[in-house]
Amino acid sequence: MPLLWDFTDMLTSQYLLSTLKENQADAEAASHQLMLRAGMVRQLASGLYVWLPTGLRVLRKVENIVREEMNKVGAIEIIMPIVQPANLWQESGRWEQYGSELLRFTDRSARPFVLGPTHEEVITDLMRNEVSSYKQLPLKFYQIQTKFRDETRPRFGIMRSREFVMKDAYSFHTSQESLQVTYEAMHQAYSAIFIRLGLDVRVVQADAGAIGGSVSHEFQALTDSGEDEIVFSTVSDYAANIALAEAVVPIAQRAIPSETMRLVDTTDTLSIAKLVSKYSLPVEKTVQMLLVRACEDTGHSFVALMIRGDHELNDTKATQLLQVAIPLKFASDEEIRLVAGAHPLSLGPVNLPLPLIIDRSVAVMSDFVAGANAEGKYFFGINWERDLPLPEVADLRKVIDGDRSPDGKGLLKIKRGIEVGHIFQLGNKYSEAMNASIQNKCGRNQALKMGCYGIGISRVVAAAIEQNHDKCGIVWPEALAPFNVAILPINMHTCNRVQEVAVELYQQLQARGIDVLLDDRKERPGVMFADIELIGVPHQFIIGNRNLDKKEIEYKNRRSGERRMIKLSTIFDFLVNVSTFEK
Amino acid sequence: MPLLWDFTDMLTSQYLLSTLKENQADAEAASHQLMLRAGMVRQLASGLYVWLPTGLRVLRKVENIVREEMNKVGAIEIIMPIVQPANLWQESGRWEQYGSELLRFTDRSARPFVLGPTHEEVITDLMRNEVSSYKQLPLKFYQIQTKFRDETRPRFGIMRSREFVMKDAYSFHTSQESLQVTYEAMHQAYSAIFIRLGLDVRVVQADAGAIGGSVSHEFQALTDSGEDEIVFSTVSDYAANIALAEAVVPIAQRAIPSETMRLVDTTDTLSIAKLVSKYSLPVEKTVQMLLVRACEDTGHSFVALMIRGDHELNDTKATQLLQVAIPLKFASDEEIRLVAGAHPLSLGPVNLPLPLIIDRSVAVMSDFVAGANAEGKYFFGINWERDLPLPEVADLRKVIDGDRSPDGKGLLKIKRGIEVGHIFQLGNKYSEAMNASIQNKCGRNQALKMGCYGIGISRVVAAAIEQNHDKCGIVWPEALAPFNVAILPINMHTCNRVQEVAVELYQQLQARGIDVLLDDRKERPGVMFADIELIGVPHQFIIGNRNLDKKEIEYKNRRSGERRMIKLSTIFDFLVNVSTFEK
Repeated sequence: MPLLWDFTDMLTSQYLLSTLKENQADAEAASHQLMLRAGMVRQLASGLYVWLPTGLRVLRKVENIVREEMNKVGAIEIIMPIVQPANLWQESGRWEQYGSELLRFTDRSARPFVLGPTHEEVITDLMRNEVSSYKQLPLKFYQIQTKFRDETRPRFGIMRSREFVMKDAYSFHTSQESLQVTYEAMHQAYSAIFIRLGLDVRVVQADAGAIGGSVSHEFQALTDSGEDEIVFSTVSDYAANIALAEAVVPIAQRAIPSETMRLVDTTDTLSIAKLVSKYSLPVEKTVQMLLVRACEDTGHSFVALMIRGDHELNDTKATQLLQVAIPLKFASDEEIRLVAGAHPLSLGPVNLPLPLIIDRSVAVMSDFVAGANAEGKYFFGINWERDLPLPEVADLRKVIDGDRSPDGKGLLKIKRGIEVGHIFQLGNKYSEAMNASIQNKCGRNQALKMGCYGIGISRVVAAAIEQNHDKCGIVWPEALAPFNVAILPINMHTCNRVQEVAVELYQQLQARGIDVLLDDRKERPGVMFADIELIGVPHQFIIGNRNLDKKEIEYKNRRSGERRMIKLSTIFDFLVNVSTFEK
Repeated sequence: MPLLWDFTDMLTSQYLLSTLKENQADAEAASHQLMLRAGMVRQLASGLYVWLPTGLRVLRKVENIVREEMNKVGAIEIIMPIVQPANLWQESGRWEQYGSELLRFTDRSARPFVLGPTHEEVITDLMRNEVSSYKQLPLKFYQIQTKFRDETRPRFGIMRSREFVMKDAYSFHTSQESLQVTYEAMHQAYSAIFIRLGLDVRVVQADAGAIGGSVSHEFQALTDSGEDEIVFSTVSDYAANIALAEAVVPIAQRAIPSETMRLVDTTDTLSIAKLVSKYSLPVEKTVQMLLVRACEDTGHSFVALMIRGDHELNDTKATQLLQVAIPLKFASDEEIRLVAGAHPLSLGPVNLPLPLIIDRSVAVMSDFVAGANAEGKYFFGINWERDLPLPEVADLRKVIDGDRSPDGKGLLKIKRGIEVGHIFQLGNKYSEAMNASIQNKCGRNQALKMGCYGIGISRVVAAAIEQNHDKCGIVWPEALAPFNVAILPINMHTCNRVQEVAVELYQQLQARGIDVLLDDRKERPGVMFADIELIGVPHQFIIGNRNLDKKEIEYKNRRSGERRMIKLSTIFDFLVNVSTFEK
């Protein structure tokens, strides 16, 4: 039978659908699995992905929503190069600080460059050249662009890939007040963006990390598969990344000593679990000690950090200690034996030949057990200020479920999230290092105040899938669906009437600006249904010859699973009612 | 006076206009000069540019026109990574062939990668993984993406930059016929694109170069500042890149010898110019000889190429000789002395100890003068087949103005152009090297036929400026203008009525989807006029208090320079008449 059309638009036969029936062995995260199976991306090499047509359509929808909201807050779009000269990174100091995620290379003339993981240096360089007076400020810029981070372990598909698409915005100001106004406007714009994207996102206080600055907030998409841990109060607004969440002491005061300190020979070196079980100890009476490389001016190679046996060290907090070298580096077992004379599990505070900093929770322990800095030997019944002086106390541990909230209101809950946005008040960090200043109203030179604001465009796609999928595939929020409507004609290649109605409906939907896919493959209906479910098209019209007798076609809603018959004449009214097609 | 609006859209005060009054010393090409002065781009490092807001608006308009026309021919948009693993380039053979424009680097695990200058390898890898049957073909893909070429000498701003934006499309077929159909469809789509872009473009036969394949055509934007030389027939359709243009012999037959061959001692070694003047010789009686490195199997280090004294060697033609090594490499003066025993200017065909290939024009010379392979000695009155045998003859020279057209119709004219598009029939080049095959109708495995199709998106912007500028600045074609309308209110900060009309007009134009810029700076009118002329906004409305008495504003057309008064009530009718605003 000859086909009735000569257009090549969105027909599955002209399209690289590339769906996969089988689960992919190398994909852990649901989003990674489904992006492969739905033919959205393909891996080219570790952390490098090709975006196939279906994936790119979704990516563009995210981009457009972000672009619209950035324009609304008066940010102006630019594009900066991906390849950046090393000298700018040397000026800012990040050439040394950034670590090996920063991909460095040389060009044909042996000049050093980096592949941009972020653009603070480039935009600051631009500003110091283009802006000279306070009258030109504030200014807000953004770009939507490919970035590169040479991740140690690229994983979860595009969620943590090496090449990725990011929206990065930068603002410049004469005063902290002006920065604060834009920071809040960006915060609101981000909230608007994530609502439009249909994501369940929580804003949390965050650590500024390698970007720098003082105040910063993350936008975390809540999902069990998230890489980040985020902490909430059960009653207040308190919310923070676990890296930043303050751990308060579990009890107000140390109990009075009730045991004498005694040396116990356990013959073996014992893990905390074994110590607890062999001596029927509460784990809250045990400690663990970690040795990290010391800052040079301490005069020591290592500093000892002590936390309770059931707690975990918070690396970010450890990094913030003045005595600790950056980046954080743990002593090897051999180094520990060399400086402390014992196995790591036998370390303890009594007669330790190193500076010691203890966690707040450890400072309120009494009658506790710790290694004696000799193999298989432990002190029991240790008490601070009786058996040894109280060392320096700091907040060192990760908070745990049930901790008291640092704002004094309620208890903490821990959830997992994917960081989809991050905003920073950078202040003078880059402008001072790179000498970006303007003349203020009094004619004096003054460093620019700076803010920066990122959204992981490609990561949003993965986060949306993590939050919106079922056993059959992706269940797209309307705003992100690669196609809002799919037309599934049954046996169109042998039935003229089915083909006529399918093509007519397709063309009418297209003419109304609706993203529609017509499945014109010569496949069994079951294959077509499964593919469209997998890709997650929200609205599906199934056209069968028998129903056409009654001038009806079948409608299926991807999210609710609802099916019903629709009169052909009422399809457009129906579509307007069931959804708004955000373009 | 308080301002009457609270929007931040396209007001010059909220925008990084960044125009420059002075000519920039480092910019040779008019487009480079004007892109800097109009605040479109800024150089970050050699061959690396930031696109400022005005530049990016133009770039996006080019992208959108190209995207629409690609969609019309049924090409499907994807995005491939910028960073590509070396192994694919090793498979295709281009890892060795591409030269040092291919930027190679290693990641943190010392694995080799390239920054993609083009994506034939990646798309071929995708196709061999995703497509297995002839039923899925033909397929057409495109991407609009940042590419990198480590140019020896980046120049003319974004016209030859290292990082640039390109639209690259690829098509895959089961047969040459199918490839031919798509090649022609792409050819037509390209013509449509360049018409919409308002560019004066000529299609010419081209050399496929490092991309490869047999048939290829370039789309050349004609302009005196172009880097390419292109050749036309004065009467026929013949048009080719000079690299490819066949040079036909100037006369059908050699004249009969009239002189005897004699050795002349000129004492000095003479350039052709000096030889001509000292002995009153027609330059057409002189020759020049060039030594290039030979292909190994010739058994020689060098091959001699001989062209007429007033002609130029065509490197592309020389490279195509079987005896010549790739890449083309000329002998140094010392090497020449070593193998031929004389100064390069004293070389000649008599008793030459090297293989010799002569140009067609040389083969028809008689009674000519050439070096005697001894310092300061020349043979006069040399004649082929009398004094020495006729060597191998080939087409070696660049055509010149006035040459006969190779199609036998008319004479050749040479013009300069900027290559803005290039289409290639690659055939099996990549699919065979990389083993990308499908099952054909007979169930047999068959290499995919491939085509590729590029448009230099960022280069189009420069080419459009080369073709559209005057002494005041850029004169944008309507489709590319960063803003189609500018509103220039005179003294709006002190005159309420002017401000009201300006804001009202701005909002009405915006509501109609017209790209409009309102110049709300506190600048003198002269500064505002000059900036808007420089940026090249096609339609300008000047709002002055006096004209408002008559409810009129002044209109100025950027291209024609026409000025006239327009009644406020008829502005929209007027705009519809003077232009179509291509979105």
